[in-house]
Amino acid sequence: MTTLFSRIVSRISGTPRKTLFGCPQCYQSLVFKTLCHSAIDSDTKGDTALMEKVDPYSLVADEISLVSKRLRSSVVAKVPELSSAAGYFFKEGVEGKRTCSMVLLLMARAMDIHGTETPFYCTKDSITTELHRRQQLIAEVTEMIHVASLIHDDVLDDADTRRGIGSLNFVVGNKLAVLAGDFLLFRALRILASLGNTEVVSLLATAVENLVTGETMQMAATVEQCSSMEYYMQKTYNKTASLISNSCKAIALLSGQTPRVATLAFEYGKHLGLAYQFIDDILDFTGTSASLGKGSLSDIHQGIITAPILYALEEFPQLQYVIEKGFENPANVDLALDYLWKSHGIQRTRELARKHANLAAAAIHSLPQTTTMDVIKSRQALINLTQLLTTRNK
Amino acid sequence: MTTLFSRIVSRISGTPRKTLFGCPQCYQSLVFKTLCHSAIDSDTKGDTALMEKVDPYSLVADEISLVSKRLRSSVVAKVPELSSAAGYFFKEGVEGKRTCSMVLLLMARAMDIHGTETPFYCTKDSITTELHRRQQLIAEVTEMIHVASLIHDDVLDDADTRRGIGSLNFVVGNKLAVLAGDFLLFRALRILASLGNTEVVSLLATAVENLVTGETMQMAATVEQCSSMEYYMQKTYNKTASLISNSCKAIALLSGQTPRVATLAFEYGKHLGLAYQFIDDILDFTGTSASLGKGSLSDIHQGIITAPILYALEEFPQLQYVIEKGFENPANVDLALDYLWKSHGIQRTRELARKHANLAAAAIHSLPQTTTMDVIKSRQALINLTQLLTTRNK
Repeated sequence: MTTLFSRIVSRISGTPRKTLFGCPQCYQSLVFKTLCHSAIDSDTKGDTALMEKVDPYSLVADEISLVSKRLRSSVVAKVPELSSAAGYFFKEGVEGKRTCSMVLLLMARAMDIHGTETPFYCTKDSITTELHRRQQLIAEVTEMIHVASLIHDDVLDDADTRRGIGSLNFVVGNKLAVLAGDFLLFRALRILASLGNTEVVSLLATAVENLVTGETMQMAATVEQCSSMEYYMQKTYNKTASLISNSCKAIALLSGQTPRVATLAFEYGKHLGLAYQFIDDILDFTGTSASLGKGSLSDIHQGIITAPILYALEEFPQLQYVIEKGFENPANVDLALDYLWKSHGIQRTRELARKHANLAAAAIHSLPQTTTMDVIKSRQALINLTQLLTTRNK
Repeated sequence: MTTLFSRIVSRISGTPRKTLFGCPQCYQSLVFKTLCHSAIDSDTKGDTALMEKVDPYSLVADEISLVSKRLRSSVVAKVPELSSAAGYFFKEGVEGKRTCSMVLLLMARAMDIHGTETPFYCTKDSITTELHRRQQLIAEVTEMIHVASLIHDDVLDDADTRRGIGSLNFVVGNKLAVLAGDFLLFRALRILASLGNTEVVSLLATAVENLVTGETMQMAATVEQCSSMEYYMQKTYNKTASLISNSCKAIALLSGQTPRVATLAFEYGKHLGLAYQFIDDILDFTGTSASLGKGSLSDIHQGIITAPILYALEEFPQLQYVIEKGFENPANVDLALDYLWKSHGIQRTRELARKHANLAAAAIHSLPQTTTMDVIKSRQALINLTQLLTTRNK
């Protein structure tokens, strides 16, 4: 990170001076003002190329590790069996991609807590440190809620694997898995309450309600609802995008941003979450790089209709008949896939993902301008992330 | 309620005057000051007898109905299936005893919001009304958490009945029952967050964590833990007393009471909850009035060891051997019951319940003195409740 900074600094102004008004950060901010605006707002090719190389993960890798470490101690319960079950997916090596943490930690850095009037004494004081700790707690809590929802989902779906190991219900049984999920949800809420901001508590409680609503929508959908793009979008928002969007908003609120900025943070999370899920839905058909172009088809085998099939249905209305018959019979799955491959379903879903990725990026572009380099770089990382997540193949 | 008031008033001072300083409530307060102190603090027989007749339920019956009505609209979800499942136990006729609501609504009235210096203009102003609405929300939220825990418990225990009807998991399946429980918990937390008091959110989140901890303690107990009175007490607190004690404390905090008063409210809830459960544990052996002295024995059949057996074990250490063998074999249940009937297990459990009922009453006696009649009467109702709940036979 420092190396990239140094390279940019050298290109603009030669070797950077150590201080300006006694503060290296302010100095960098002023020096980079022109570069950074151009990097984000224009297409000045060389500088943009450099900014586009900002790797979202490595920018906050240390913080992600810190959050993961704290998580392991945060989920300790009074009863060893509960600690063990609740901590199952927080052990090193099975922590998953930790995309939620990455997005939220970047969002925290993307908030300009100094506002447009950057003070001359912008060293990291105790207030900034405390704010950062509180924002990290949002990342922690979001991972806990995310894992709790996965644990409950696995109970509901009788799943036997998750993240390459046995699912929690498979290892400890349904009862303890349900309890571990409940425990994580409320430990998360208790940590949230300690932040002393009931709007933030409300946002995350709403997110969990939406998770439950989305799961029910999937479980209880009629054939008509299954065939509706509107229903699918609503379900996808509830199941995938609501948590990250509400957490992004919570991050903004904690740092005292205006309602407009909080809404933009929410919009970023919402569109990123949607785009992420659309790509997931494509990969379920086309497969990951590891599976050489063959998807697991797990959605359709469970009777879950996603965007690619819905677009295929628009082109081939006769697919409706197949959907009505259900997918318990493998011949129906094959028939649906025939229609899908003949259609532009995959392509249109990818366009839909791109559209939402662009809306996410637009939300970041709409944030009030800043002159703080760290903030600019984090915003660029969030923008880069929209592209990385929508071009991924696993 | 009014009738009882009138009778007390007539005995003290003849027909009550309509106003004193323009406020009937103040008038009553002043007139009853002597009576009320004596009713609670001394044994002036006639007046005490009248106060002891204060019926806790009828004192807040209207409010309980109001809370029940509001609950039915509070649990409406975006998805009809979820609304239906979440509202299953809030329908008229299957709402249960609503003991939580009764205790909390009485506790709300038992808090002297005017303090020792009662103002002359103590009509119910908007502040009092708003406070009361907020306290009612605590009752509402507590019922929601209580029902959510019952729903999840029934899933864990594969129970097929509850409150005289099919359990939710029996009617809609485990999946929707788990989701309905999750939904209720988080709808409850969202309502709590709307109160804008994070200490209150934290108290209730802790209560749910304790519920989960208690359930896990019961599920994962070793034989040694099953035989420990200390473990049983801790588990009982977590499963039964933690929710009502934390909610009582929340009621006190919302009305701006001192930490000491909040602790006394907590202590009342804790000891009442424990006493209630000890009687429940006795009734599981001795039966309710309806079952003519024969209990359902459901605890021991599930291998759950409660106070009566633990006391029997103290008298007959050879019972340990039966406990170690478990209760899947009905002969072991019979053997344990033989020891129980020979022992003072039931009697000692009843004494334990009485001890905690008295501790609950003592917490109310320790509240700062008040001259407000409504407050005094509600406190007396809370005290009466300790006796009613521990002498119940169903």
